[in-house]
Amino acid sequence: MPQLGVLGTGQVGQAIARRAAEVGYDVTVGARSAGSSSLAVFAGDRGVATGSFADAVAAAPLVVNATNGAVSLEALAQVGPEALAGTTLVDVSNELRPVDGGFPLPVATAEDSLGARIQHAYPASRVVKTLNTMNNAVMVRPASIPGDHLVFLSSDSVDAKDEVRTLLHAFGWRDPQMLDLGGIATAAATEMMMAVWMAVTIARGPGAPRFNWAVLEAQTP
Amino acid sequence: MPQLGVLGTGQVGQAIARRAAEVGYDVTVGARSAGSSSLAVFAGDRGVATGSFADAVAAAPLVVNATNGAVSLEALAQVGPEALAGTTLVDVSNELRPVDGGFPLPVATAEDSLGARIQHAYPASRVVKTLNTMNNAVMVRPASIPGDHLVFLSSDSVDAKDEVRTLLHAFGWRDPQMLDLGGIATAAATEMMMAVWMAVTIARGPGAPRFNWAVLEAQTP
Repeated sequence: MPQLGVLGTGQVGQAIARRAAEVGYDVTVGARSAGSSSLAVFAGDRGVATGSFADAVAAAPLVVNATNGAVSLEALAQVGPEALAGTTLVDVSNELRPVDGGFPLPVATAEDSLGARIQHAYPASRVVKTLNTMNNAVMVRPASIPGDHLVFLSSDSVDAKDEVRTLLHAFGWRDPQMLDLGGIATAAATEMMMAVWMAVTIARGPGAPRFNWAVLEAQTP
Repeated sequence: MPQLGVLGTGQVGQAIARRAAEVGYDVTVGARSAGSSSLAVFAGDRGVATGSFADAVAAAPLVVNATNGAVSLEALAQVGPEALAGTTLVDVSNELRPVDGGFPLPVATAEDSLGARIQHAYPASRVVKTLNTMNNAVMVRPASIPGDHLVFLSSDSVDAKDEVRTLLHAFGWRDPQMLDLGGIATAAATEMMMAVWMAVTIARGPGAPRFNWAVLEAQTP
């Protein structure tokens, strides 16, 4: 069975861990400590083991960072560079900050993304930024939205992107939906996109169906 | 005939001025000076007069800022707050800066957009940020791309957004394609989106057909 580590026990971590187990992965979810009360939600889940962040990394060569972007570097520091070396680190997080009287907004700027900061901090890991431009339900069940809506991939490692494609396929993503943007520096682009995602989500209102981005093409160039 | 002022003589200014003239607007394009050589491209255009930035603003209550975002505030300063007071200012610009060895990236951050800066500098004008998330050919001929791809609107003035909708309709935009994001602060969201627009444009390669963003929806909420 393929192995997957998942860091983080929030909505994103839960969605990814459960869906990965459902499609045949042997999953280990990590929290700040192996005894964290946040792991209790996985008590009844088949195929999902729990432990510390370090336990989840030790369990699998493929690890999803589903922690809150504001604390991701801290969570990874708890694991440390030696344990993370050689892993493929799938960074699906967004670092948002509250705005007085407005919607939360991304911290990313054109030259500063969390994805690139993680890669810089852990050069012996292969960081792939992906799935961070959509609701967690869409991440793991893309077929719930008809059509060629998109998932972006950013990484300096072509091999790591191929490993992540295997995971995305297992979730139901099809090749035409996967748009490789290039190196990890392009994570800035998708992290900044969270601003318009928030604005569109608010404009559509609480009752609107889930959505994802697509590009529509001209019939002639 | 409806009147339109257009500031800027680059590709965006040309596309908007010509298309507006084609659909029945009486257009005045403004450059840094009425004698600017950049105005020569309009010599053969019916329905397009030329002049200074101030001439273009004086000619119409509806004015499009199609200058390079890096110099837009300077161009508007040349016109001045008295002449701009009472105008509806349609800001379609993007402020980009070159990146060493990479693609140009937006200057906008979550709390600093050019649209909001223009509104702050000219409180007696009504600024509407729109059309800044796509190629200029798509701006003025949306029907060249089939489907409900989107144009975003951000403005503190509901009336001004209605005036801009009239212009967008004339270009061929349909109501389901117009997504009102709210106040001018949301211009940050669409300006930041230029980062992923650049990354997608580069990933698709030079031969790819023009594209625009759409949101695809889940069939059930």
